[in-house]
Amino acid sequence: MDAVKVGLLGLGTVGGGTVNVLTRNADEITRRAGRGIRIIQAAARDYDAEAINGLDQIDVTDDAFAVVNNPEIEIVIELIGGYSPARELVLQAIENGKHVVTANKALIAMHGNEIFAAAQAKGVTVAFEAGVAGGIPIIKAIREGLAANQIEWVAGIINGTGNFILSEMRDKGRDFDDVLAEAQALGYAEADPTFDVEGIDAAHKLTILSSIAFGIPLQFDKTYTEGITRIDRQDVAFASELGYRIKHLGIAHKTDKGIEMRVHPTLIPERRLLANVDGVMNAVLVKGDAVGPTLYYGAGAGSEPTASAVVADVVDVVRALTTDPENRVPHLAFQPNELSDLPILGMEDVETAYYLRMQVADELGVMAEITRILADAEISIEAIQQKEPAEGDTQVSLIMLTHEVLERQMNQAIKRIEALAAVTAPVIRIRMEQLDG
Amino acid sequence: MDAVKVGLLGLGTVGGGTVNVLTRNADEITRRAGRGIRIIQAAARDYDAEAINGLDQIDVTDDAFAVVNNPEIEIVIELIGGYSPARELVLQAIENGKHVVTANKALIAMHGNEIFAAAQAKGVTVAFEAGVAGGIPIIKAIREGLAANQIEWVAGIINGTGNFILSEMRDKGRDFDDVLAEAQALGYAEADPTFDVEGIDAAHKLTILSSIAFGIPLQFDKTYTEGITRIDRQDVAFASELGYRIKHLGIAHKTDKGIEMRVHPTLIPERRLLANVDGVMNAVLVKGDAVGPTLYYGAGAGSEPTASAVVADVVDVVRALTTDPENRVPHLAFQPNELSDLPILGMEDVETAYYLRMQVADELGVMAEITRILADAEISIEAIQQKEPAEGDTQVSLIMLTHEVLERQMNQAIKRIEALAAVTAPVIRIRMEQLDG
Repeated sequence: MDAVKVGLLGLGTVGGGTVNVLTRNADEITRRAGRGIRIIQAAARDYDAEAINGLDQIDVTDDAFAVVNNPEIEIVIELIGGYSPARELVLQAIENGKHVVTANKALIAMHGNEIFAAAQAKGVTVAFEAGVAGGIPIIKAIREGLAANQIEWVAGIINGTGNFILSEMRDKGRDFDDVLAEAQALGYAEADPTFDVEGIDAAHKLTILSSIAFGIPLQFDKTYTEGITRIDRQDVAFASELGYRIKHLGIAHKTDKGIEMRVHPTLIPERRLLANVDGVMNAVLVKGDAVGPTLYYGAGAGSEPTASAVVADVVDVVRALTTDPENRVPHLAFQPNELSDLPILGMEDVETAYYLRMQVADELGVMAEITRILADAEISIEAIQQKEPAEGDTQVSLIMLTHEVLERQMNQAIKRIEALAAVTAPVIRIRMEQLDG
Repeated sequence: MDAVKVGLLGLGTVGGGTVNVLTRNADEITRRAGRGIRIIQAAARDYDAEAINGLDQIDVTDDAFAVVNNPEIEIVIELIGGYSPARELVLQAIENGKHVVTANKALIAMHGNEIFAAAQAKGVTVAFEAGVAGGIPIIKAIREGLAANQIEWVAGIINGTGNFILSEMRDKGRDFDDVLAEAQALGYAEADPTFDVEGIDAAHKLTILSSIAFGIPLQFDKTYTEGITRIDRQDVAFASELGYRIKHLGIAHKTDKGIEMRVHPTLIPERRLLANVDGVMNAVLVKGDAVGPTLYYGAGAGSEPTASAVVADVVDVVRALTTDPENRVPHLAFQPNELSDLPILGMEDVETAYYLRMQVADELGVMAEITRILADAEISIEAIQQKEPAEGDTQVSLIMLTHEVLERQMNQAIKRIEALAAVTAPVIRIRMEQLDG
């Protein structure tokens, strides 16, 4: 059979990697797919021609719309990133009856509902495996591999930059700013690291994971997002002493009251595999009612790992070219008319355990006052550690681990604690998850 | 659309779990698949009716051939296990134009080539996700999720019983026989534990993983198989001291000379995630040239975890019912006419590093003799530890870690070492892998 003709938007890190993988592994991929996959046209302004093998077989233009309007092309790969013009290009490709493969999580998280509806109407597929956790086939695992399950929760390390920073802070006792600067020098973090360290990138990915896990529309605006910029190396060290690691997790959880979607620093027990995922690696833990916990680990970013997912999606699309659209795997795992309107819970309605650190004057009765406030709020304490003040210092650090409590109650208790005269700094609060059921 | 009509062979642990999952999650599964999945007939002799929900909707017969010959049934689920009559039933179902889903690794490893050829001729699918690593969607991950990659190697903990035993030996310093007896009492190990502890079950699964990773026919008879029955708790403890864990791994490795397929106890660095997979859990580490290392973790056995994979396969088959057979995912990942005849290497042609333990008389010059033999065989030593003899004992234990060497050379060196007068017991040898590239 003839090779499938593909158009590529973007020849940057991932675009270049995609051309390289398709060129190097052409034989292996064709032996699997039963058809060759040939990029015939690519759109890019700036690119490093030296770093890309096989570019001589590709017509390179600077007009992205020329690619999506090219009648020869059956599948468009969008690797430009960002919202615009990616959105317009993807919608135009769909309008032209072309299938789309994209690595653009921001686009899917923000405009996925519109894009999938358009694709549905045209009977084409929009594939986005590369958008979440890079080379790890996590979309496929949840959407197809765990299709028998009611998914109970998903918890993932889905931003490599943030995980690198937290890993270094723990392993070497370094400060956040110091490691961030190194990550930027190494190319792990962007010049503007906001998307990574403030959790926005993770929230895009979590929004997508929540939808395919629970069959709900994409609702990025309802995802709670808290970054790691205020994590102090003291807390990393104290957590370690207590047998926990601090990870920046994306957590989606189905409860009786609704769906939780939240990205925040989280203490997890050090014995969990997820706690031992270090450096820039990603991992996603998924709990299904039949299968129990399953974990998926690998490179969450980078040229060829991301290209691996892009090309796998292209192979899937090629295989489905002759399938009735109704029989294809639905974009959000559930049939489009079967999505549910389960409410998304606000953060005050979420129940978690907590790590608390308080800086208090080293005087009689403070502990009694604090524990009284917690008892009044029905917050039970699992562990308390008081750290000796440094010589000449009159301040001590008080570390507490609590049992599960509604965030609303915790907020009220913290407000009362901070009002105590002996409490000399804002209370540090980090959520804690056992991830054991 | 009408529900798909399914026939089930076997109502044991996994068969019962499959009925339970399909009954409990019917709504969720239909919302995903776009069609209901209904087991209309099941064949079983002995079963626990009390433990299975939804049995009242199923016609239960004791004649398995009645199910595979039932003209109403489109998909047959084979959960009887063993070679016969499973083989005859599966072939008859295929002959009747039915798709087959099976959890039977022994059947696929031994008779898969015949079964897939028959299925290919009839244009039907035989799905076997549940055969390897239970609920972990590892077949799907390798066959579809990593389709862009040249797979370099696969290393997996793919027998939960063996992993439970080794985990207990390490955590509690217990002996093999003692833990095996407990595993049998807990129902993790069969009354006849041979398949598990001698590595035969793992070899079945590794045979399947090798084929889908490298595109080679199933060749169970060429898989090297070594069990864990001779692992001494001393070696588990010494490995720990050196920063390693002993795991019973299935390893498939593509080299310039051919394919290695081997199941044996293996020292791996304790920092690897795979080293921290404990108890009855399974995990498979897969290295692709584009994606790098990826790991898949979950329950490798049990009623509902295995049912999770069975039902996911049924959903996949349902989705592919209207697909041209040529466009379906090939049974062994590569198109049937594209399988390769790469040679399978004999164990003597495999290169690994080694852990060696020697029991030697505590006298002058022994170390010089042994290291001379190793040097003559071009085996370089990475670490040596001599264990103090117990008081009054004249024997010492000598532990060595070597660099990589051909097994043939190591065998010759060991023979020469064992011939030394001062060496008073057979040399203990456990292979070692870094799993870092």
